[in-house]
Amino acid sequence: MAGDRIKIFEVGPRDGLQNEKKIISLGSKLELIRGLIGAGLKQIEAGAFVRPDRVPQMADTDALYRAIHRADLAKGGVTFWALVPNLKGLERAIAVGARNIAVFTAASDTFTKKNIGMTVSESLREYERVVDTIRKMHGPKIRVRGYVSTALGCPYEGKISPSRVIRITEKLLEMGVEQVSIGDTIGVGVPSQVEQVLGGVMRSIGRKEAEKRIAGHFHDTRGTALANCLKAFELGIRTFDSSAGGLGGCPYAPGASGNLATEDLVYLFENMGVRTGVNLERLAKISFKLSRKMKRDLPSKSLQAMKKTK
Amino acid sequence: MAGDRIKIFEVGPRDGLQNEKKIISLGSKLELIRGLIGAGLKQIEAGAFVRPDRVPQMADTDALYRAIHRADLAKGGVTFWALVPNLKGLERAIAVGARNIAVFTAASDTFTKKNIGMTVSESLREYERVVDTIRKMHGPKIRVRGYVSTALGCPYEGKISPSRVIRITEKLLEMGVEQVSIGDTIGVGVPSQVEQVLGGVMRSIGRKEAEKRIAGHFHDTRGTALANCLKAFELGIRTFDSSAGGLGGCPYAPGASGNLATEDLVYLFENMGVRTGVNLERLAKISFKLSRKMKRDLPSKSLQAMKKTK
Repeated sequence: MAGDRIKIFEVGPRDGLQNEKKIISLGSKLELIRGLIGAGLKQIEAGAFVRPDRVPQMADTDALYRAIHRADLAKGGVTFWALVPNLKGLERAIAVGARNIAVFTAASDTFTKKNIGMTVSESLREYERVVDTIRKMHGPKIRVRGYVSTALGCPYEGKISPSRVIRITEKLLEMGVEQVSIGDTIGVGVPSQVEQVLGGVMRSIGRKEAEKRIAGHFHDTRGTALANCLKAFELGIRTFDSSAGGLGGCPYAPGASGNLATEDLVYLFENMGVRTGVNLERLAKISFKLSRKMKRDLPSKSLQAMKKTK
Repeated sequence: MAGDRIKIFEVGPRDGLQNEKKIISLGSKLELIRGLIGAGLKQIEAGAFVRPDRVPQMADTDALYRAIHRADLAKGGVTFWALVPNLKGLERAIAVGARNIAVFTAASDTFTKKNIGMTVSESLREYERVVDTIRKMHGPKIRVRGYVSTALGCPYEGKISPSRVIRITEKLLEMGVEQVSIGDTIGVGVPSQVEQVLGGVMRSIGRKEAEKRIAGHFHDTRGTALANCLKAFELGIRTFDSSAGGLGGCPYAPGASGNLATEDLVYLFENMGVRTGVNLERLAKISFKLSRKMKRDLPSKSLQAMKKTK
């Protein structure tokens, strides 16, 4: 365990902010992203090429990408990712020079229907077209990551069969998605499910392959996210998604926590001797700043503890 | 894992309330205790026979015990526990018919000095006298539990050597304390420390003995409590201390979380197929009621999620 390292995939500027009501300006987003880079984060989900009328918080993603390139923020090994729901989103992404895109589906039809207007199978066919278009038109220089949401439970359908998640994950990997992030979107999951679902994927594709190609994306709605990370880490997972300060509420339980806080993830692993590459103090500074802008405490417990002892 | 069970030691009425500024009336404490019993909790830390001028929240423990006996609340296998810092406290406890007492020390001298005015060694000698007095005067009908606080870190001394915690725990067990609860009083601990400290005790006294005689008492100040419980459970620990709603802040970081919330503990284990004997819905009702009385949200994330989805 000690001497090991994990990779943190920071989703605050997209998954986090998207679930916040308060619209954050382009300038503040850039400041947040600069801060995240300063704290040592290397994988940053910056925006989404989705319909501006449906997701107003992401309406400036094109402008944000132009600003990111103008300021040359991708130097030093920082990678920016953006969500792309379909071919149209892909066109917009390519047009502003986005090179790392994320596609998202889920383990339950009701959820994908409400979210992206397609069944899971339809979404997989759409992403196959997206990946094919990428490979034909842009070769290997465009990287693709995938999300499987509601993997440990769906707000509409309840329990999800682990074999279904495993099948969808394999399908995404087969079509050339380089890494699949398995998401407990509503934060209902517990470690025994992590063992069944992520453990199942690992048994299917092999531990070495899974170490690179599978990520854990846990929400902390019921306080179980770190226990789930611990279990996933013990299984061999080495990439975890999280959001600065725990930015982003839970859309199904307004006011409750959503994304696991990056601070809590960093605290846990750094104190177990597992390196994250992230400077907790610097990260907390950014989150405090953001918290003041949002005019509310962010849910990260480590952050709260740091605030009160200062 | 599934088919297994854990015992929850509810510390809300004592450890929880003691760290809350708002003084709760005797009537409200009784109502809380009745609610906890109704939710299925069997081990309840009800009060402390400490100096009323130093701990005003516990000033009514004598009266509370008389009320508990008058209402015959200990029927049906419910056990009430009270903290006793010295021989004087023991006298008061016995006088009101308390039969299950808890003694507390810590792994760091600075902490015990500030807390109970003794070094760790002095406290162990005092408790030896307490246990001797009990055995001579009252035979085996008085049960004694022990706490080792600051076991994973001290607010004054920082890091604590695992071997020190193991030695103190063994000393308490040897003097006849039936169960020792190993406490991460300031919520700084991570699973690798749980493995070192609780794992170390288990290797020393044997897993079967430890299953009965060792409890995990984790605080959730940095969100790591459930991950610590998971690790302790995997090691073979089967008793966990927690507080309804996460009642009780952290005295070293006012406003931050203290005790692990019973709701979060119940949610985690019940959903892993591990029985706790506690009804989460009923427990949440009690915590919501208490939350309204305290005029603030209690920190339990499961509780917050239940509130918002209702």
